Amino acid sequence: MSTQPHDHIVRSYDEERQRLTGEILRMGEMAVAQLEAALDVVERRDDRAAARIVANDEAIDLLEHEVSQDVMRLALRGPMARDLREILSALRIASDIERIGDYAANVAKRSTALNSAPPLPHTRGLAILGQRVVRQLRDVLEAFATDDAEAAQRVRAQDAEVDTLHTGLFRELLTYMMEDARAITPCTHLLFMAKNLERIGDHATNIAENIWFLVHGDDALPPREKRDDTSGPG
Amino acid sequence: MSTQPHDHIVRSYDEERQRLTGEILRMGEMAVAQLEAALDVVERRDDRAAARIVANDEAIDLLEHEVSQDVMRLALRGPMARDLREILSALRIASDIERIGDYAANVAKRSTALNSAPPLPHTRGLAILGQRVVRQLRDVLEAFATDDAEAAQRVRAQDAEVDTLHTGLFRELLTYMMEDARAITPCTHLLFMAKNLERIGDHATNIAENIWFLVHGDDALPPREKRDDTSGPG
Repeated sequence: MSTQPHDHIVRSYDEERQRLTGEILRMGEMAVAQLEAALDVVERRDDRAAARIVANDEAIDLLEHEVSQDVMRLALRGPMARDLREILSALRIASDIERIGDYAANVAKRSTALNSAPPLPHTRGLAILGQRVVRQLRDVLEAFATDDAEAAQRVRAQDAEVDTLHTGLFRELLTYMMEDARAITPCTHLLFMAKNLERIGDHATNIAENIWFLVHGDDALPPREKRDDTSGPG
Repeated sequence: MSTQPHDHIVRSYDEERQRLTGEILRMGEMAVAQLEAALDVVERRDDRAAARIVANDEAIDLLEHEVSQDVMRLALRGPMARDLREILSALRIASDIERIGDYAANVAKRSTALNSAPPLPHTRGLAILGQRVVRQLRDVLEAFATDDAEAAQRVRAQDAEVDTLHTGLFRELLTYMMEDARAITPCTHLLFMAKNLERIGDHATNIAENIWFLVHGDDALPPREKRDDTSGPG
Protein backbone atom coordinates (compact mmCIF):
# COMPACT_ATOMS: atom_id res chain seq x y z
CA MET A 1 0.00 0.00 0.00
CA SER A 2 1.46 3.38 -0.90
CA THR A 3 1.98 5.96 1.81
CA GLN A 4 2.66 8.79 -0.61
CA PRO A 5 0.53 11.90 -0.22
CA HIS A 6 -2.23 11.68 -2.80
CA ASP A 7 -2.25 15.36 -3.62
CA HIS A 8 1.01 14.74 -5.53
CA ILE A 9 -0.51 11.74 -7.30
CA VAL A 10 2.87 10.17 -7.97
CA ARG A 11 1.90 6.59 -8.44
CA SER A 12 4.25 3.67 -8.72
CA TYR A 13 4.39 1.80 -12.01
CA ASP A 14 2.53 -1.10 -10.42
CA GLU A 15 -0.22 1.20 -9.22
CA GLU A 16 -0.62 2.60 -12.72
CA ARG A 17 -0.76 -0.92 -14.14
CA GLN A 18 -3.43 -1.89 -11.65
CA ARG A 19 -5.40 1.23 -12.48
CA LEU A 20 -5.22 0.30 -16.16
CA THR A 21 -6.39 -3.24 -15.43
CA GLY A 22 -9.25 -1.84 -13.40
CA GLU A 23 -10.33 0.44 -16.23
CA ILE A 24 -10.33 -2.44 -18.69
CA LEU A 25 -12.36 -4.61 -16.33
CA ARG A 26 -14.83 -1.76 -15.88
CA MET A 27 -15.12 -1.45 -19.67
CA GLY A 28 -15.72 -5.18 -19.78
CA GLU A 29 -18.45 -5.05 -17.15
CA MET A 30 -20.16 -2.27 -19.06
CA ALA A 31 -19.96 -4.26 -22.29
CA VAL A 32 -21.49 -7.33 -20.62
CA ALA A 33 -24.27 -5.18 -19.17
CA GLN A 34 -24.92 -3.58 -22.57
CA LEU A 35 -25.05 -6.97 -24.28
CA GLU A 36 -27.45 -8.45 -21.72
CA ALA A 37 -29.61 -5.33 -21.88
CA ALA A 38 -29.69 -5.49 -25.69
CA LEU A 39 -30.80 -9.12 -25.67
CA ASP A 40 -33.43 -8.18 -23.12
CA VAL A 41 -34.89 -5.32 -25.19
CA VAL A 42 -35.18 -7.66 -28.16
CA GLU A 43 -37.39 -9.94 -26.04
CA ARG A 44 -39.37 -7.14 -24.40
CA ARG A 45 -39.65 -4.99 -27.55
CA ASP A 46 -38.82 -1.85 -25.57
CA ASP A 47 -37.83 1.08 -27.79
CA ARG A 48 -37.02 3.47 -24.96
CA ALA A 49 -34.72 1.01 -23.22
CA ALA A 50 -33.09 0.35 -26.61
CA ALA A 51 -32.43 4.06 -27.06
CA ARG A 52 -30.81 4.20 -23.61
CA ILE A 53 -28.47 1.34 -24.53
CA VAL A 54 -27.44 3.16 -27.71
CA ALA A 55 -26.76 6.32 -25.70
CA ASN A 56 -24.78 4.40 -23.06
CA ASP A 57 -22.28 3.18 -25.63
CA GLU A 58 -20.53 6.52 -25.44
CA ALA A 59 -19.39 5.74 -21.89
CA ILE A 60 -17.46 2.72 -23.15
CA ASP A 61 -15.88 4.81 -25.92
CA LEU A 62 -14.78 7.43 -23.37
CA LEU A 63 -13.23 4.74 -21.17
CA GLU A 64 -11.29 3.45 -24.17
CA HIS A 65 -9.88 6.94 -24.71
CA GLU A 66 -8.83 7.03 -21.05
CA VAL A 67 -7.17 3.66 -21.40
CA SER A 68 -5.25 4.93 -24.45
CA GLN A 69 -4.04 7.94 -22.47
CA ASP A 70 -3.04 5.79 -19.48
CA VAL A 71 -1.18 3.41 -21.76
CA MET A 72 0.75 6.34 -23.19
CA ARG A 73 1.58 7.60 -19.70
CA LEU A 74 2.84 4.15 -18.74
CA ALA A 75 4.92 3.97 -21.91
CA LEU A 76 6.50 7.29 -21.01
CA ARG A 77 7.98 5.63 -17.93
CA GLY A 78 10.22 3.46 -20.10
CA PRO A 79 8.91 0.04 -19.18
CA MET A 80 10.80 -3.27 -19.52
CA ALA A 81 10.09 -5.57 -22.44
CA ARG A 82 7.44 -7.61 -20.65
CA ASP A 83 5.75 -4.44 -19.47
CA LEU A 84 5.67 -3.09 -23.03
CA ARG A 85 3.98 -6.29 -24.20
CA GLU A 86 1.53 -5.92 -21.34
CA ILE A 87 0.51 -2.38 -22.12
CA LEU A 88 0.22 -3.12 -25.84
CA SER A 89 -2.09 -6.00 -24.90
CA ALA A 90 -4.08 -3.64 -22.72
CA LEU A 91 -4.57 -1.34 -25.71
CA ARG A 92 -5.72 -4.18 -27.97
CA ILE A 93 -8.06 -5.62 -25.35
CA ALA A 94 -9.60 -2.22 -24.70
CA SER A 95 -10.11 -1.84 -28.44
CA ASP A 96 -11.83 -5.25 -28.67
CA ILE A 97 -14.12 -4.37 -25.75
CA GLU A 98 -15.01 -1.06 -27.38
CA ARG A 99 -16.06 -2.90 -30.53
CA ILE A 100 -18.07 -5.39 -28.47
CA GLY A 101 -19.91 -2.44 -26.95
CA ASP A 102 -20.58 -1.09 -30.45
CA TYR A 103 -22.05 -4.39 -31.62
CA ALA A 104 -24.23 -4.66 -28.51
CA ALA A 105 -25.56 -1.15 -29.09
CA ASN A 106 -26.23 -2.05 -32.73
CA VAL A 107 -28.30 -5.04 -31.62
CA ALA A 108 -30.37 -2.72 -29.43
CA LYS A 109 -30.74 -0.19 -32.25
CA ARG A 110 -31.97 -2.83 -34.70
CA SER A 111 -34.46 -4.17 -32.20
CA THR A 112 -36.54 -1.01 -32.65
CA ALA A 113 -36.95 -1.96 -36.31
CA LEU A 114 -38.33 -5.33 -35.25
CA ASN A 115 -40.82 -3.64 -32.97
CA SER A 116 -42.69 -2.05 -35.86
CA ALA A 117 -43.51 -5.56 -37.15
CA PRO A 118 -45.65 -8.26 -35.47
CA PRO A 119 -43.75 -10.40 -32.93
CA LEU A 120 -41.83 -13.27 -34.50
CA PRO A 121 -41.50 -16.62 -32.74
CA HIS A 122 -37.97 -17.10 -34.04
CA THR A 123 -36.15 -14.73 -31.72
CA ARG A 124 -35.53 -17.77 -29.47
CA GLY A 125 -32.56 -18.74 -31.64
CA LEU A 126 -31.14 -15.26 -31.24
CA ALA A 127 -31.57 -15.39 -27.45
CA ILE A 128 -29.73 -18.72 -27.29
CA LEU A 129 -26.87 -17.41 -29.44
CA GLY A 130 -26.83 -14.26 -27.31
CA GLN A 131 -26.59 -16.10 -24.01
CA ARG A 132 -23.75 -18.22 -25.36
CA VAL A 133 -21.85 -15.06 -26.29
CA VAL A 134 -22.56 -13.46 -22.89
CA ARG A 135 -21.05 -16.56 -21.25
CA GLN A 136 -17.98 -16.36 -23.52
CA LEU A 137 -17.49 -12.68 -22.74
CA ARG A 138 -17.82 -13.13 -18.98
CA ASP A 139 -15.37 -16.04 -19.09
CA VAL A 140 -12.74 -14.10 -20.99
CA LEU A 141 -12.99 -11.09 -18.67
CA GLU A 142 -12.52 -13.46 -15.72
CA ALA A 143 -9.48 -14.94 -17.46
CA PHE A 144 -8.10 -11.42 -17.95
CA ALA A 145 -8.69 -10.49 -14.32
CA THR A 146 -6.82 -13.57 -13.13
CA ASP A 147 -4.09 -13.74 -15.83
CA ASP A 148 -5.33 -17.25 -16.62
CA ALA A 149 -4.05 -18.38 -20.03
CA GLU A 150 -5.65 -21.83 -19.77
CA ALA A 151 -9.06 -20.28 -19.15
CA ALA A 152 -8.39 -18.02 -22.14
CA GLN A 153 -7.70 -21.11 -24.27
CA ARG A 154 -11.05 -22.57 -23.22
CA VAL A 155 -12.77 -19.37 -24.35
CA ARG A 156 -11.13 -19.73 -27.76
CA ALA A 157 -12.53 -23.25 -27.99
CA GLN A 158 -16.03 -21.92 -27.27
CA ASP A 159 -15.96 -19.83 -30.43
CA ALA A 160 -16.51 -22.83 -32.71
CA GLU A 161 -19.82 -23.50 -30.93
CA VAL A 162 -20.86 -19.85 -31.29
CA ASP A 163 -20.13 -20.03 -35.02
CA THR A 164 -22.17 -23.24 -35.35
CA LEU A 165 -25.13 -21.67 -33.55
CA HIS A 166 -24.85 -18.61 -35.77
CA THR A 167 -24.76 -20.63 -39.00
CA GLY A 168 -27.81 -22.62 -37.91
CA LEU A 169 -29.76 -19.50 -36.98
CA PHE A 170 -28.78 -17.85 -40.26
CA ARG A 171 -30.18 -20.74 -42.31
CA GLU A 172 -33.29 -20.95 -40.15
CA LEU A 173 -34.03 -17.28 -40.79
CA LEU A 174 -33.55 -17.80 -44.54
CA THR A 175 -36.28 -20.46 -44.53
CA TYR A 176 -38.76 -18.09 -42.84
CA MET A 177 -37.97 -15.45 -45.45
CA MET A 178 -38.53 -17.92 -48.29
CA GLU A 179 -41.83 -19.16 -46.85
CA ASP A 180 -43.39 -15.74 -46.31
CA ALA A 181 -42.47 -12.45 -47.97
CA ARG A 182 -43.78 -10.53 -44.92
CA ALA A 183 -41.01 -12.13 -42.87
CA ILE A 184 -38.24 -10.80 -45.13
CA THR A 185 -37.73 -7.35 -43.61
CA PRO A 186 -37.87 -8.38 -39.92
CA CYS A 187 -35.72 -11.46 -40.58
CA THR A 188 -33.17 -9.28 -42.35
CA HIS A 189 -32.79 -7.31 -39.13
CA LEU A 190 -32.45 -10.56 -37.18
CA LEU A 191 -29.73 -11.70 -39.60
CA PHE A 192 -27.74 -8.55 -38.91
CA MET A 193 -28.29 -8.90 -35.17
CA ALA A 194 -27.10 -12.52 -35.31
CA LYS A 195 -24.03 -11.36 -37.22
CA ASN A 196 -23.35 -8.72 -34.56
CA LEU A 197 -23.47 -11.42 -31.87
CA GLU A 198 -21.14 -13.67 -33.85
CA ARG A 199 -18.72 -10.75 -34.20
CA ILE A 200 -18.85 -10.18 -30.43
CA GLY A 201 -17.78 -13.80 -30.04
CA ASP A 202 -14.88 -13.16 -32.43
CA HIS A 203 -13.71 -10.19 -30.38
CA ALA A 204 -14.00 -12.18 -27.14
CA THR A 205 -11.72 -14.72 -28.83
CA ASN A 206 -9.29 -11.93 -29.79
CA ILE A 207 -9.17 -10.93 -26.12
CA ALA A 208 -8.49 -14.55 -25.17
CA GLU A 209 -5.57 -14.67 -27.61
CA ASN A 210 -4.16 -11.44 -26.20
CA ILE A 211 -4.31 -12.90 -22.68
CA TRP A 212 -2.53 -16.02 -23.88
CA PHE A 213 0.29 -14.01 -25.49
CA LEU A 214 0.50 -11.87 -22.38
CA VAL A 215 1.25 -14.93 -20.29
CA HIS A 216 3.17 -17.09 -22.79
CA GLY A 217 4.94 -14.48 -24.90
CA ASP A 218 5.64 -15.54 -28.45
CA ASP A 219 5.03 -19.27 -27.88
CA ALA A 220 2.91 -20.67 -30.66
CA LEU A 221 -0.83 -20.56 -30.15
CA PRO A 222 -2.85 -23.39 -31.73
CA PRO A 223 -4.68 -22.16 -34.87
CA ARG A 224 -8.17 -20.77 -34.29
CA GLU A 225 -11.00 -23.03 -35.38
CA LYS A 226 -13.51 -21.06 -37.47
CA ARG A 227 -16.85 -22.69 -38.28
CA ASP A 228 -18.86 -19.75 -39.54
CA ASP A 229 -20.28 -20.92 -42.87
CA THR A 230 -22.65 -18.04 -43.49
CA SER A 231 -20.28 -16.27 -45.91
CA GLY A 232 -20.02 -19.45 -47.98
CA PRO A 233 -22.24 -20.63 -50.82
CA GLY A 234 -25.90 -20.20 -49.88
CA MET B 1 19.15 14.99 -43.09
CA SER B 2 20.86 12.86 -40.44
CA THR B 3 24.54 12.06 -40.79
CA GLN B 4 24.56 9.40 -38.10
CA PRO B 5 25.97 5.98 -39.06
CA HIS B 6 23.02 3.75 -39.87
CA ASP B 7 24.45 0.65 -38.31
CA HIS B 8 23.63 2.17 -34.94
CA ILE B 9 20.08 2.90 -36.07
CA VAL B 10 19.68 5.81 -33.68
CA ARG B 11 16.98 7.77 -35.37
CA SER B 12 15.81 11.19 -34.39
CA TYR B 13 12.30 11.59 -33.08
CA ASP B 14 11.30 13.25 -36.33
CA GLU B 15 12.65 10.35 -38.36
CA GLU B 16 10.66 7.91 -36.24
CA ARG B 17 7.53 10.03 -36.70
CA GLN B 18 8.02 10.05 -40.45
CA ARG B 19 8.56 6.31 -40.46
CA LEU B 20 5.30 5.91 -38.57
CA THR B 21 3.47 8.15 -41.03
CA GLY B 22 4.94 6.12 -43.90
CA GLU B 23 3.73 2.87 -42.37
CA ILE B 24 0.22 4.23 -41.95
CA LEU B 25 0.15 5.49 -45.53
CA ARG B 26 1.32 2.09 -46.70
CA MET B 27 -1.47 0.44 -44.72
CA GLY B 28 -3.88 2.86 -46.34
CA GLU B 29 -2.65 2.07 -49.85
CA MET B 30 -3.07 -1.62 -49.15
CA ALA B 31 -6.59 -1.05 -47.86
CA VAL B 32 -7.54 0.94 -50.97
CA ALA B 33 -6.07 -1.81 -53.18
CA GLN B 34 -7.98 -4.49 -51.26
CA LEU B 35 -11.24 -2.56 -51.51
CA GLU B 36 -10.89 -1.96 -55.25
CA ALA B 37 -9.91 -5.60 -55.77
CA ALA B 38 -12.92 -6.77 -53.75
CA LEU B 39 -15.33 -4.66 -55.80
CA ASP B 40 -13.67 -6.03 -58.93
CA VAL B 41 -14.08 -9.70 -57.94
CA VAL B 42 -17.77 -9.05 -57.27
CA GLU B 43 -18.14 -7.90 -60.88
CA ARG B 44 -15.94 -10.62 -62.37
CA ARG B 45 -17.22 -13.43 -60.13
CA ASP B 46 -13.66 -14.68 -59.58
CA ASP B 47 -13.37 -17.06 -56.62
CA ARG B 48 -9.62 -17.47 -56.77
CA ALA B 49 -8.97 -13.74 -56.80
CA ALA B 50 -11.40 -13.41 -53.90
CA ALA B 51 -9.42 -15.99 -51.92
CA ARG B 52 -6.21 -14.05 -52.58
CA ILE B 53 -7.81 -10.86 -51.23
CA VAL B 54 -8.85 -12.68 -48.06
CA ALA B 55 -5.31 -14.01 -47.62
CA ASN B 56 -3.77 -10.58 -48.24
CA ASP B 57 -5.63 -9.08 -45.31
CA GLU B 58 -3.04 -10.54 -42.97
CA ALA B 59 -0.43 -8.15 -44.34
CA ILE B 60 -2.49 -5.18 -43.18
CA ASP B 61 -2.91 -6.76 -39.74
CA LEU B 62 0.86 -7.29 -39.46
CA LEU B 63 1.49 -3.65 -40.39
CA GLU B 64 -0.91 -2.56 -37.67
CA HIS B 65 1.08 -4.56 -35.14
CA GLU B 66 4.27 -2.84 -36.36
CA VAL B 67 2.60 0.53 -36.01
CA SER B 68 1.61 -0.33 -32.42
CA GLN B 69 5.20 -1.27 -31.62
CA ASP B 70 6.56 1.89 -33.24
CA VAL B 71 4.06 4.01 -31.33
CA MET B 72 5.24 2.43 -28.10
CA ARG B 73 8.87 3.09 -29.01
CA LEU B 74 8.04 6.72 -29.73
CA ALA B 75 6.20 7.01 -26.44
CA LEU B 76 9.28 5.70 -24.65
CA ARG B 77 11.13 8.83 -25.80
CA GLY B 78 8.95 11.00 -23.60
CA PRO B 79 7.27 13.14 -26.21
CA MET B 80 5.73 16.57 -25.66
CA ALA B 81 1.97 16.94 -25.34
CA ARG B 82 1.35 17.56 -29.04
CA ASP B 83 3.54 14.60 -29.94
CA LEU B 84 1.56 12.38 -27.56
CA ARG B 85 -1.67 13.43 -29.25
CA GLU B 86 -0.07 12.72 -32.59
CA ILE B 87 1.04 9.22 -31.77
CA LEU B 88 -2.30 8.38 -30.15
CA SER B 89 -3.96 9.55 -33.37
CA ALA B 90 -1.57 7.35 -35.32
CA LEU B 91 -2.70 4.36 -33.26
CA ARG B 92 -6.37 5.11 -33.82
CA ILE B 93 -5.95 5.74 -37.54
CA ALA B 94 -4.01 2.50 -37.95
CA SER B 95 -6.80 0.68 -36.12
CA ASP B 96 -9.44 2.21 -38.43
CA ILE B 97 -7.44 1.22 -41.52
CA GLU B 98 -7.08 -2.34 -40.18
CA ARG B 99 -10.87 -2.57 -39.84
CA ILE B 100 -11.34 -1.17 -43.33
CA GLY B 101 -9.08 -3.93 -44.59
CA ASP B 102 -11.19 -6.48 -42.72
CA TYR B 103 -14.40 -5.22 -44.27
CA ALA B 104 -12.89 -5.22 -47.75
CA ALA B 105 -11.75 -8.83 -47.28
CA ASN B 106 -15.26 -9.71 -46.05
CA VAL B 107 -16.77 -8.27 -49.24
CA ALA B 108 -14.41 -10.47 -51.26
CA LYS B 109 -15.25 -13.51 -49.12
CA ARG B 110 -18.99 -13.02 -49.56
CA SER B 111 -18.64 -12.61 -53.31
CA THR B 112 -17.85 -16.33 -53.59
CA ALA B 113 -21.31 -17.04 -52.15
CA LEU B 114 -22.84 -14.93 -54.91
CA ASN B 115 -20.93 -16.87 -57.53
CA SER B 116 -22.82 -20.07 -56.82
CA ALA B 117 -26.06 -18.34 -57.87
CA PRO B 118 -26.99 -16.97 -61.33
CA PRO B 119 -25.67 -13.45 -61.99
CA LEU B 120 -27.88 -10.70 -60.60
CA PRO B 121 -28.35 -7.40 -62.44
CA HIS B 122 -28.50 -5.43 -59.18
CA THR B 123 -24.81 -5.44 -58.30
CA ARG B 124 -24.62 -2.06 -60.11
CA GLY B 125 -25.88 -0.36 -56.97
CA LEU B 126 -23.16 -2.05 -54.97
CA ALA B 127 -20.49 -0.95 -57.46
CA ILE B 128 -21.68 2.66 -57.24
CA LEU B 129 -21.67 2.59 -53.44
CA GLY B 130 -18.25 0.95 -53.56
CA GLN B 131 -16.72 3.57 -55.85
CA ARG B 132 -18.04 6.32 -53.62
CA VAL B 133 -16.36 4.71 -50.62
CA VAL B 134 -13.08 4.22 -52.52
CA ARG B 135 -13.14 7.96 -53.31
CA GLN B 136 -13.77 8.79 -49.66
CA LEU B 137 -10.95 6.55 -48.49
CA ARG B 138 -8.43 7.96 -51.02
CA ASP B 139 -9.40 11.50 -50.04
CA VAL B 140 -8.93 10.89 -46.33
CA LEU B 141 -5.52 9.26 -46.82
CA GLU B 142 -4.49 12.26 -48.90
CA ALA B 143 -5.69 14.54 -46.10
CA PHE B 144 -3.62 12.52 -43.61
CA ALA B 145 -0.51 12.67 -45.79
CA THR B 146 -0.77 16.46 -46.05
CA ASP B 147 -2.07 17.23 -42.51
CA ASP B 148 -5.07 18.91 -44.18
CA ALA B 149 -7.88 19.38 -41.67
CA GLU B 150 -10.16 21.16 -44.16
CA ALA B 151 -9.87 18.25 -46.59
CA ALA B 152 -10.66 15.94 -43.66
CA GLN B 153 -13.81 17.97 -42.97
CA ARG B 154 -14.89 17.51 -46.60
CA VAL B 155 -14.48 13.73 -46.21
CA ARG B 156 -16.76 13.83 -43.18
CA ALA B 157 -19.38 15.62 -45.26
CA GLN B 158 -19.17 12.87 -47.90
CA ASP B 159 -20.37 10.31 -45.39
CA ALA B 160 -23.98 11.50 -45.51
CA GLU B 161 -24.05 10.71 -49.23
CA VAL B 162 -22.57 7.26 -48.63
CA ASP B 163 -25.29 6.58 -46.05
CA THR B 164 -27.98 7.72 -48.47
CA LEU B 165 -26.66 5.45 -51.21
CA HIS B 166 -26.53 2.56 -48.76
CA THR B 167 -30.10 3.09 -47.54
CA GLY B 168 -31.37 3.21 -51.12
CA LEU B 169 -29.50 0.06 -52.11
CA PHE B 170 -30.75 -1.71 -48.97
CA ARG B 171 -34.38 -0.99 -49.83
CA GLU B 172 -33.86 -1.90 -53.47
CA LEU B 173 -32.49 -5.29 -52.46
CA LEU B 174 -35.48 -5.86 -50.17
CA THR B 175 -37.84 -5.40 -53.13
CA TYR B 176 -36.00 -8.05 -55.18
CA MET B 177 -36.24 -10.43 -52.23
CA MET B 178 -39.97 -9.83 -51.89
CA GLU B 179 -40.62 -10.31 -55.60
CA ASP B 180 -38.77 -13.59 -55.97
CA ALA B 181 -37.87 -16.08 -53.26
CA ARG B 182 -34.88 -17.28 -55.31
CA ALA B 183 -33.33 -13.84 -54.90
CA ILE B 184 -33.42 -14.01 -51.09
CA THR B 185 -30.15 -15.82 -50.42
CA PRO B 186 -27.98 -13.91 -52.94
CA CYS B 187 -29.56 -10.58 -51.95
CA THR B 188 -28.85 -11.36 -48.30
CA HIS B 189 -25.17 -11.57 -49.18
CA LEU B 190 -25.43 -8.29 -51.07
CA LEU B 191 -27.05 -6.67 -48.03
CA PHE B 192 -24.12 -7.69 -45.87
CA MET B 193 -21.65 -6.52 -48.50
CA ALA B 194 -23.43 -3.16 -48.71
CA LYS B 195 -23.25 -2.91 -44.92
CA ASN B 196 -19.52 -3.64 -45.02
CA LEU B 197 -19.04 -0.80 -47.51
CA GLU B 198 -21.09 1.58 -45.38
CA ARG B 199 -18.94 0.64 -42.38
CA ILE B 200 -15.78 1.37 -44.40
CA GLY B 201 -17.22 4.82 -45.00
CA ASP B 202 -17.76 5.22 -41.24
CA HIS B 203 -14.15 4.32 -40.53
CA ALA B 204 -12.90 6.70 -43.21
CA THR B 205 -14.92 9.36 -41.37
CA ASN B 206 -13.30 8.33 -38.06
CA ILE B 207 -9.90 8.85 -39.69
CA ALA B 208 -11.02 12.27 -40.91
CA GLU B 209 -12.02 13.23 -37.36
CA ASN B 210 -8.67 12.05 -36.02
CA ILE B 211 -6.88 14.23 -38.58
CA TRP B 212 -9.02 17.21 -37.58
CA PHE B 213 -8.18 16.76 -33.87
CA LEU B 214 -4.55 16.27 -34.75
CA VAL B 215 -4.47 19.70 -36.35
CA HIS B 216 -6.98 21.60 -34.21
CA GLY B 217 -6.56 19.94 -30.84
CA ASP B 218 -9.66 20.00 -28.68
CA ASP B 219 -11.53 22.66 -30.66
CA ALA B 220 -15.11 21.58 -31.16
CA LEU B 221 -15.82 19.53 -34.25
CA PRO B 222 -19.27 20.00 -35.83
CA PRO B 223 -21.51 17.01 -35.06
CA ARG B 224 -21.40 14.15 -37.56
CA GLU B 225 -24.41 13.88 -39.85
CA LYS B 226 -25.67 10.29 -39.96
CA ARG B 227 -28.24 9.35 -42.58
CA ASP B 228 -28.15 5.58 -42.42
CA ASP B 229 -31.80 4.55 -42.03
CA THR B 230 -31.40 0.83 -42.50
CA SER B 231 -31.48 0.10 -38.76
CA GLY B 232 -34.77 1.95 -38.44
CA PRO B 233 -38.29 0.62 -38.91
CA GLY B 234 -38.48 -1.43 -42.10
